Amino acid sequence: MIHSASDDTAIDVAIIGAGFAGLNAARELEKRGLRVQVLEARDRVGGRSRPGQLNGVTIDTGGQWVGVGHERLTRLAQEAGAALVPQYGKGRKVLQVDGKARTYTGLIPPVSPRALIEMQLALVALRHLQKKVDAARPWESALAPLDNETLASWQKRWLRSRGARAIFDIGVRAVFCARPGQLSMLHFLSYLAANHSFDYLISAEGGAQAATVQGGMHQLTTHLARQLRTPVLLEAPVMRLEQSDTGVVVTHGKGTLRATRVIVAMAPSMARKIAGDPVHTARDKLGERMPMGSVIKCLVAYATPFWREQGLSGEFVSDTAPFSPVFDHSPADGSCGILVGFFDGPEALRWSGDPDGRRRAVIESLVAAFGPAAATPVDYIDHDWIADPWSEGCYVGLPAPGALTELGRALRAPHGRVHWAGTETATAWTGYIEGALASGEAAAQEVALALQAER
Amino acid sequence: MIHSASDDTAIDVAIIGAGFAGLNAARELEKRGLRVQVLEARDRVGGRSRPGQLNGVTIDTGGQWVGVGHERLTRLAQEAGAALVPQYGKGRKVLQVDGKARTYTGLIPPVSPRALIEMQLALVALRHLQKKVDAARPWESALAPLDNETLASWQKRWLRSRGARAIFDIGVRAVFCARPGQLSMLHFLSYLAANHSFDYLISAEGGAQAATVQGGMHQLTTHLARQLRTPVLLEAPVMRLEQSDTGVVVTHGKGTLRATRVIVAMAPSMARKIAGDPVHTARDKLGERMPMGSVIKCLVAYATPFWREQGLSGEFVSDTAPFSPVFDHSPADGSCGILVGFFDGPEALRWSGDPDGRRRAVIESLVAAFGPAAATPVDYIDHDWIADPWSEGCYVGLPAPGALTELGRALRAPHGRVHWAGTETATAWTGYIEGALASGEAAAQEVALALQAER
Repeated sequence: MIHSASDDTAIDVAIIGAGFAGLNAARELEKRGLRVQVLEARDRVGGRSRPGQLNGVTIDTGGQWVGVGHERLTRLAQEAGAALVPQYGKGRKVLQVDGKARTYTGLIPPVSPRALIEMQLALVALRHLQKKVDAARPWESALAPLDNETLASWQKRWLRSRGARAIFDIGVRAVFCARPGQLSMLHFLSYLAANHSFDYLISAEGGAQAATVQGGMHQLTTHLARQLRTPVLLEAPVMRLEQSDTGVVVTHGKGTLRATRVIVAMAPSMARKIAGDPVHTARDKLGERMPMGSVIKCLVAYATPFWREQGLSGEFVSDTAPFSPVFDHSPADGSCGILVGFFDGPEALRWSGDPDGRRRAVIESLVAAFGPAAATPVDYIDHDWIADPWSEGCYVGLPAPGALTELGRALRAPHGRVHWAGTETATAWTGYIEGALASGEAAAQEVALALQAER
Repeated sequence: MIHSASDDTAIDVAIIGAGFAGLNAARELEKRGLRVQVLEARDRVGGRSRPGQLNGVTIDTGGQWVGVGHERLTRLAQEAGAALVPQYGKGRKVLQVDGKARTYTGLIPPVSPRALIEMQLALVALRHLQKKVDAARPWESALAPLDNETLASWQKRWLRSRGARAIFDIGVRAVFCARPGQLSMLHFLSYLAANHSFDYLISAEGGAQAATVQGGMHQLTTHLARQLRTPVLLEAPVMRLEQSDTGVVVTHGKGTLRATRVIVAMAPSMARKIAGDPVHTARDKLGERMPMGSVIKCLVAYATPFWREQGLSGEFVSDTAPFSPVFDHSPADGSCGILVGFFDGPEALRWSGDPDGRRRAVIESLVAAFGPAAATPVDYIDHDWIADPWSEGCYVGLPAPGALTELGRALRAPHGRVHWAGTETATAWTGYIEGALASGEAAAQEVALALQAER
């Protein structure tokens, strides 16, 4: 379009990052007839989703769930010909609080009546509070001063029994891969507002963990990447951006290209690694104050899903075992049993860099939950997202207390010719693949309009 | 020592960063007969201290004060032949709260009796609390759970009057270049424990701003640098560290060197920019959760220190003017009048990248404080520490809520052959030049012992 005939490397839009956000932005821009190049640091597309092989089954070592209401993601799965499988949840769940493991069915965990009442009151209060926060601009809400408090401070006032605190902590850690003491109360409410409710976020049936993609989430990013006219350039980390009045020079691991506009589709803290023009801006400072969550994802295969025979669903949550939560992720053909689970928050930090130790900790946790049969797996795989050089943590960047009110306005605001995508920038379904897809659409629209205005 | 004869670039210790910490570590190691090379990214030594020229006077655009009890720094000034000048403080101070400017003398600001009582009770409570926190290992204290709360949450309970909150906020912002909502209460108490008390930190006479160095702080780092047998290598940013069983390969802007051990004497968040072995460790994750404070330092020269004639000390603090606090920094020879002040926290973020706007805001704030004579300066200089590519903020890295308890143990723990210095790692006088000097000494001692043990 605007590239000069003399420079055949000039394109309309360079997109940095081939996760769901970047790939969807590329697709949307190509639909509009624009010349696009996606640059990816890794040797694969998919970003924070990532396939793996376990006992001959292709599984997800990264993002895996499709939530109720994740419409873009559901459509994309259909388009890619990938089946969605409801998360298995038949049978009793295992809850371990203060070292005691108990099983239960339904939605009500076996804790004291007082803990249950406190939890219910807290959830009602949160639903009331989240309504006052616009997830697209929480810093403008009447509750913006809550950015100066942590979720832990709020929780301390509302939950006084050990049981209620333990259950709430487990839920927060599972959703954010961080403890309540690390989270801004405003950010927490904004996240709830963007994702229906806290109940939704921690639920399988009817919630954010409703279904998985048979054969793996990577089928969807591969499908997106294959559709592009210009193939994704892999192993091409972007080192530098330099802006001029007419375009941006992008220096990457495999050379240099000129683009009229750029979309950075990376987590805000990772975007800080790019030198040149976008640094030392408000967006850069925001990235400095949005550290990534901490998580290691582990999958364990057994000859059979033996827990099902015991009447257990495979769901296990604990405030004492290091490896929690755990879910059943056995293949639909019943060829073997697979449990998937997480070290999150401080437990992930503790076990990062110790692959042997954490494998032992996984098995010990599973034996505590499901009995001695869990001691003899047939295969094991994990992925330490903290040590992943192109993610440095998962699932998302978490604005530290004070960051959103001081710098939140920079989250989506273009910096000259540089625009932003990635699930952190989504105004709905923030933190999920659905949000990543939506953020790619929004950035594509913004860039297309800007290019039109320049003509 | 341990370097092989075949490789003449091999040394005992490479030190990254030529601020007070790195230079002092180098001096201590050379005293022990070790071969040291200091590598510095900037074109000067001094780190977060930095000289400037204003109306023919050499002033400090970075760290400037010597506090009572800063013994290493005081000794170093003597050694360098630099005189210490008490901070000027004769006359009435100006306090602006809610837009009203009032003058006062002594230690008691003109706020309501209720505000004064609340402030006093809060200060007593803080002195009581800080005693329970060991600044060398706050995460082990009985008060460690306060890492899950912000200082703002604590302050809200203790200070209920507007006046008390305003005064407290001003003090916190002046000390940390951040608002109370950003600070972990545990980190705040640890900082007080490391630096005597909150009163000390916000005071000139008898406190952290007791004196300045006539002719500028840079004389002291220049003195340290000149003493070194091997000159500091400037404009040599370190890009990569690779460790083996016998040493570390240091890749920097001017080449490569081999050292048996390395001291990284940088702020923890800046240390994250070095690729290779130290990344994706607990120290790296801690750095991710220690964003720098935000500050722009500005100095304004007038023909005379006209405020003195009005019976004013030049001290001005405000909760409404963007430019506060302000102090008299006129040269001892009375050749002109100089005011020095700061945009800190959100005000610094707001004015970063707008040099003309902030200069106007400085003058407007000074006119509001000292009258129309402040409208006609003869010279002006500032330094935006947020935009400084080798600092990315000042004065120090601030552990976000939750960071110290999860990762604080990694602050000083060596990572193989890589050791840590810098004022953030100091166990006393943390955040001050005195702490930087002490941290350099401690790192040198640690490295010398490690080298001895290897022989």
